[in-house]
Amino acid sequence: MSRHRRPFSEKGSPTGIVRSETDAGHAPVRITLIDYDATHFQERQVDHIAECIPFRDSETVTWINVDSLADASLIEELGRCFSIHPLILEDVFNTKQRPKLVDLDSYIYLNLKMLSFIERDTDVKVEHISIIFGSNYLISFQEDVGDTFDTVRESIRKEGKIRKFGPDYLVYALIDTIVDNYFTVMEKFEEKIEDLDEELVIHSSQQSLHRINWLKKQMILLRKSVWPLREVLNSLERSESPLIKEATTIYLRDLYDHTIDVIDSLESFRDMVSGMIDIYLSGLSYRMNEIMKVLTLIATIFIPLTFIVGIYGMNFHVMPELAWEYGYYAVWMILIGVVATMLLYFRSRAWI
Amino acid sequence: MSRHRRPFSEKGSPTGIVRSETDAGHAPVRITLIDYDATHFQERQVDHIAECIPFRDSETVTWINVDSLADASLIEELGRCFSIHPLILEDVFNTKQRPKLVDLDSYIYLNLKMLSFIERDTDVKVEHISIIFGSNYLISFQEDVGDTFDTVRESIRKEGKIRKFGPDYLVYALIDTIVDNYFTVMEKFEEKIEDLDEELVIHSSQQSLHRINWLKKQMILLRKSVWPLREVLNSLERSESPLIKEATTIYLRDLYDHTIDVIDSLESFRDMVSGMIDIYLSGLSYRMNEIMKVLTLIATIFIPLTFIVGIYGMNFHVMPELAWEYGYYAVWMILIGVVATMLLYFRSRAWI
Amino acid sequence: MSRHRRPFSEKGSPTGIVRSETDAGHAPVRITLIDYDATHFQERQVDHIAECIPFRDSETVTWINVDSLADASLIEELGRCFSIHPLILEDVFNTKQRPKLVDLDSYIYLNLKMLSFIERDTDVKVEHISIIFGSNYLISFQEDVGDTFDTVRESIRKEGKIRKFGPDYLVYALIDTIVDNYFTVMEKFEEKIEDLDEELVIHSSQQSLHRINWLKKQMILLRKSVWPLREVLNSLERSESPLIKEATTIYLRDLYDHTIDVIDSLESFRDMVSGMIDIYLSGLSYRMNEIMKVLTLIATIFIPLTFIVGIYGMNFHVMPELAWEYGYYAVWMILIGVVATMLLYFRSRAWI
Amino acid sequence: MSRHRRPFSEKGSPTGIVRSETDAGHAPVRITLIDYDATHFQERQVDHIAECIPFRDSETVTWINVDSLADASLIEELGRCFSIHPLILEDVFNTKQRPKLVDLDSYIYLNLKMLSFIERDTDVKVEHISIIFGSNYLISFQEDVGDTFDTVRESIRKEGKIRKFGPDYLVYALIDTIVDNYFTVMEKFEEKIEDLDEELVIHSSQQSLHRINWLKKQMILLRKSVWPLREVLNSLERSESPLIKEATTIYLRDLYDHTIDVIDSLESFRDMVSGMIDIYLSGLSYRMNEIMKVLTLIATIFIPLTFIVGIYGMNFHVMPELAWEYGYYAVWMILIGVVATMLLYFRSRAWI
Amino acid sequence: MSRHRRPFSEKGSPTGIVRSETDAGHAPVRITLIDYDATHFQERQVDHIAECIPFRDSETVTWINVDSLADASLIEELGRCFSIHPLILEDVFNTKQRPKLVDLDSYIYLNLKMLSFIERDTDVKVEHISIIFGSNYLISFQEDVGDTFDTVRESIRKEGKIRKFGPDYLVYALIDTIVDNYFTVMEKFEEKIEDLDEELVIHSSQQSLHRINWLKKQMILLRKSVWPLREVLNSLERSESPLIKEATTIYLRDLYDHTIDVIDSLESFRDMVSGMIDIYLSGLSYRMNEIMKVLTLIATIFIPLTFIVGIYGMNFHVMPELAWEYGYYAVWMILIGVVATMLLYFRSRAWI
Repeated sequence: MSRHRRPFSEKGSPTGIVRSETDAGHAPVRITLIDYDATHFQERQVDHIAECIPFRDSETVTWINVDSLADASLIEELGRCFSIHPLILEDVFNTKQRPKLVDLDSYIYLNLKMLSFIERDTDVKVEHISIIFGSNYLISFQEDVGDTFDTVRESIRKEGKIRKFGPDYLVYALIDTIVDNYFTVMEKFEEKIEDLDEELVIHSSQQSLHRINWLKKQMILLRKSVWPLREVLNSLERSESPLIKEATTIYLRDLYDHTIDVIDSLESFRDMVSGMIDIYLSGLSYRMNEIMKVLTLIATIFIPLTFIVGIYGMNFHVMPELAWEYGYYAVWMILIGVVATMLLYFRSRAWI
Repeated sequence: MSRHRRPFSEKGSPTGIVRSETDAGHAPVRITLIDYDATHFQERQVDHIAECIPFRDSETVTWINVDSLADASLIEELGRCFSIHPLILEDVFNTKQRPKLVDLDSYIYLNLKMLSFIERDTDVKVEHISIIFGSNYLISFQEDVGDTFDTVRESIRKEGKIRKFGPDYLVYALIDTIVDNYFTVMEKFEEKIEDLDEELVIHSSQQSLHRINWLKKQMILLRKSVWPLREVLNSLERSESPLIKEATTIYLRDLYDHTIDVIDSLESFRDMVSGMIDIYLSGLSYRMNEIMKVLTLIATIFIPLTFIVGIYGMNFHVMPELAWEYGYYAVWMILIGVVATMLLYFRSRAWI
Repeated sequence: MSRHRRPFSEKGSPTGIVRSETDAGHAPVRITLIDYDATHFQERQVDHIAECIPFRDSETVTWINVDSLADASLIEELGRCFSIHPLILEDVFNTKQRPKLVDLDSYIYLNLKMLSFIERDTDVKVEHISIIFGSNYLISFQEDVGDTFDTVRESIRKEGKIRKFGPDYLVYALIDTIVDNYFTVMEKFEEKIEDLDEELVIHSSQQSLHRINWLKKQMILLRKSVWPLREVLNSLERSESPLIKEATTIYLRDLYDHTIDVIDSLESFRDMVSGMIDIYLSGLSYRMNEIMKVLTLIATIFIPLTFIVGIYGMNFHVMPELAWEYGYYAVWMILIGVVATMLLYFRSRAWI
Repeated sequence: MSRHRRPFSEKGSPTGIVRSETDAGHAPVRITLIDYDATHFQERQVDHIAECIPFRDSETVTWINVDSLADASLIEELGRCFSIHPLILEDVFNTKQRPKLVDLDSYIYLNLKMLSFIERDTDVKVEHISIIFGSNYLISFQEDVGDTFDTVRESIRKEGKIRKFGPDYLVYALIDTIVDNYFTVMEKFEEKIEDLDEELVIHSSQQSLHRINWLKKQMILLRKSVWPLREVLNSLERSESPLIKEATTIYLRDLYDHTIDVIDSLESFRDMVSGMIDIYLSGLSYRMNEIMKVLTLIATIFIPLTFIVGIYGMNFHVMPELAWEYGYYAVWMILIGVVATMLLYFRSRAWI
Repeated sequence: MSRHRRPFSEKGSPTGIVRSETDAGHAPVRITLIDYDATHFQERQVDHIAECIPFRDSETVTWINVDSLADASLIEELGRCFSIHPLILEDVFNTKQRPKLVDLDSYIYLNLKMLSFIERDTDVKVEHISIIFGSNYLISFQEDVGDTFDTVRESIRKEGKIRKFGPDYLVYALIDTIVDNYFTVMEKFEEKIEDLDEELVIHSSQQSLHRINWLKKQMILLRKSVWPLREVLNSLERSESPLIKEATTIYLRDLYDHTIDVIDSLESFRDMVSGMIDIYLSGLSYRMNEIMKVLTLIATIFIPLTFIVGIYGMNFHVMPELAWEYGYYAVWMILIGVVATMLLYFRSRAWI
């Protein structure tokens, strides 16, 4: 039962529901440790898990950040050191899991998704972030090496507010960084939607449909990442665990409200994107109407004319009109008359 | 963590989900103070926050109204003066936040949206309104300078009912003004929907679709502003906070019911607008049918005729009909016969 | 705050969401009073509110019915006489409000909608009915003058069951009359839906779409009137107010079940009506297919024929076929051969 | 208030929401009585209600089954004999009511729908079944004369399990018979859906749409009959009434689970049927495309050819090509060249 | 009442909602018994139910696995031996039942669905798995003979973690095997969806629609199998039954979370598949537009040309142009002029 689940496709998945983990696996694990309280601060690179033990036993807040999940044995050792349940470690590795929270009394595990929208890339990148925190420590796991939490680190170094609080406020600070980032991603999507909206009005093409579809898929992907976070933050805020101090609750509530804001925008975007398909389809119908109008106009005017001139192309020996001196001119009169009638009819139908 | 979030696009957003805050930022902050109880009334312009302190400590009701959020430092000073939590001040500035209520025991914070529908404008204008009230004071923040609350001010000056109650009734009066305004906006939308409905019946064009789409987006925007208010008012009414006196509850309940009325109409409008796309699309299909009928009629009648006259345009040396004296007239008979048959067929199909 | 809200449009609204109140305003107010208990019965026309006071203080059940809301001052006087809260009186006048129930301990206020479907009219007429009842009185307000409650009056006169119960049973009897009427309206709609369903099968036209759309709007309107009643009746039945005797609960439960039946049918109608648009649209597509088939058949048969006869209409000096004695007859063979091939092809495609 | 409601149309309703009651009304009422306990068994036809009284007072289980609701007075007499509340009797007659359960302490009333799907008939037949049971009796009312409960009767006669239990287990046995029958109806519908699904793939016609629509309506009808039963069974199982013995609870739970299975299948069928409309519509579009392709191919090939031969049909005195000896053959070369080019073009577009 | 329900069609059902049971019925029943505790392990084939009795009474954990449901009498004997309620045995045989859990104090019954997706097969295969477990035994029933639980057996043989726990952990291990398998099925579906998505972009055909429809049906089928499992696992985790030890709860919670992950992906797939129909339909419309454009281009250019040359094919005796020396060349100029004009017009409309 201890093997790590690798649900769905191993390779990068074009549907965007599940994400590649090949790259993540190759970066070397980097472990950094920050130890602080209101007055004291220490930061170091960890090479051997054993280095963490004195910090675990001290009363100061210890934040261990693990970049990349490549070295499973190292992380398992860290887990043993902090008595983390094997199932929780499995969850750390299971990068496709939806955000969830598990309260194990002596520590709380939660995971969530870091989103990033790299312009040259096609899809939103989803990174699995796990956080385990107890009364005096917090361990964070990032799927990829990155500078996600640099602003938090900076704030700790500069004796920011975080220094005065325990790991529960640090949890808030970390999640806040991620949720802030969601707003940036939303902003990018809003631009995409506006661009597409304009494109649909001016000149939609087969490409537009694929763009709408791509947006729709991204919305499904974002939804999967953001919706469950709401539940996680709600459990965290309402938790009766002694690990969450009352003073932190208002911050968590604020975080929860921001997540609701993100979800609200997401739902609005979904509504808009689904409306786009109607616009695209009706654009197609409208242009079809335009094309058919042109065809009908031309065909309806010229087909009768062609018939009329055809009559006088017949070779009957007895055709009195042919011999008539003004016959040719009379036919021209008739032709002009037919065209005029047709045009009047089309105008009455508001086709021209 | 204390910087103010500016989620989404900085500039005005055409999708209508998020709103420009550039204009709001430039108007100078104007602070007015009204102090009253059943017998006493005082109104003044505030230039320095310090002027508010004596009122804060008196037992009379003090209403401080802040127009424009341009001067953050002034508002932060006011916050310190009334011991407002920094997160709450952040919410005051976060003009894109959904309506919410935070009960902090000694005071309650809530925010909601003022809507205005200026005919010459294209989109509904959404203004962020924040209200903080304690046992003897109420601070309201308006994103833009405006005369929104003038009717309430007038009522206080004229020794209206408000004078006999505490800040909780003032909260009711302020929200009531805003909800009353929602009805006006709904009325405007109802007119727009009626106009569009008529347009669709008489002469829909590509423009109609864009109007439907615009209405749909506005509905999404209104929904985002009005729905959460329901929850806010419900929390306010059911609140067990001593700040809400029992006598005020019935007024808050009434306000809640009016909000439900607005939401009901909004949902009905949504249903109607979404039905309009079907009408528009079926209108397109119907006109396509009409166009195709005309083309088919003309082509089906004249193409066979052209073929017949084509036959006798052939130059074969041996073509007995050509030499026949009545050949030409016989062809005319055949042509008329074909047309008559076609017309009868079309009539049987109810096409003409 | 005491002015009466007049949300939405003042004049009659074609969308059917909001209704005209102009007519209602002009009929003179008519107040009738019925006083009864198991043994005693009295009925009179009330000209001055003061006449009601002795009845208010007696222990017999007093039912005051107010027809038309035209004379606000009279109704306000009645309100003062029975100590009705001003907000409740506001609700009596607010004819666009959704059905709601307010329990004020000494009396209960509730409002609901009377529906009527006059054949020559286009839209369902919605009449606002308000009921206020205490331990020994019931006041009912009808927006329009009408004979809605005549059956109830008759039953009281004839010493019906109502005489043995208090005002709570009278409430039941009044609402029951209205809900019974809902079934009649539903029946009318069922007929309309059946007619339209048949019309769609036999010969749908652009008119059919407008009829479907009209039905859809009426459904939205009915939904707004009937759904909230469910909640009202549920609150009434589960109310722990001493005004509702236990013996009446089973009647209210029965009423609740009937309302659920109406809602069920309404939802079924909605489902049916929304399915109609698909049928209408596919009918359009189907007929388009038929039209195109005819065009394609004719064009595909005659265009090649016209080409063939065109060939022998050319005036080249050297065209051996023209001189051939059987050339003309050979061309006819070719023409017939082409037509036969085409027809076989079309038959193989099941087009003819 | 005691008249029986006859909501909606009196005659058979083609929409299938409401059902004819004319036939039901004419069959003569037939009352059968079965009295049993573990050791004793008696079965008789009842002609006068008075015959039931001794059984009512005995401790053995008495099951009175009433076939047809034609004779209201007889049923009302039965009701009086067992002290049934008049409202409950009204519910027995109200054949259009949705399934519901009323617990009146000394007895429980519940009603549900018997469904039958007669192949030669068009619509599902819905029969209203009412069951009233107390501590030692059970009265069942069937709208129509039928052999619905024969298997239960047989089981009682043969000293089946039912004999050892009270009326609560008999209730289970009766409902179980009806729910079993739902599975048969579902099976029939599944066949219909499969047939239609195949028809849509092979050769859909305008008829297919009407069949889809008919299925959709039947689904709405079944939903109305089956969904509320879930609630009824849930109330029955969780009831704290002493009329339901604990040993019966597991059977009722099983019944509840079977109802959920029926509802699940119903929802799946709904999903499938709603998907069918998309298939039908896209089938229409696809065939339209095919038709248009043929038309376009023929027209695009022959219209230019006809033009070319038209050129050399002109009668200009000076047309050098006409006099050229190989002119005619050159034109044929051109014609063949044009056709070849066109065909290559169409092949490149994958049209042929 | 004791006969086994065979709801819906007896034979294999193409809609995929209900599954064939014919094959299942023919395989001979195979019963294996594994008895273990932390130190002890025994595995044997059971030929007579009586062999199980000593194990039933011992304190070690006994796992009896029954492959195939063909021999009802054998299974009923086993049921009697372990005092299983007849209704529960009925559930074991009712292979179409949705996953459910029944807690009977001395043992718990639950069933769920094993899914398998065999590439050469068309539909997902659904196997009914039932599990009954008490304080010291677990009986599992598999509808088909298979090696589903081999990994669990292997783990027990190898003194895995399971050996240290009771039947509750064995339940976890068995369900975990099945849920793990769900991920494999999901992966297969993801591939199918990706393939189809690509197909729709590159070259959709009538086949694509049938593939979309097939996917949609499979989604309905999977939903029916997986959704109720969520509820089952939730009941199991929250159960207060002494049969579930507290140490197992965290494992069950984890299982629940994995099921939610499966459901999440399923819902995302549903969203994607339903979006595909829009893409398919708009693809049809788009190609129709392309076809019509070609037809319109050709017809609009050549029909007027044909008319012009038709004029000079007339045989009037008096037609001055014919005699003009440069007449023929002038006509060519006109023809080229018309084509140029048309092409310019089409270019201005962006059609070519």
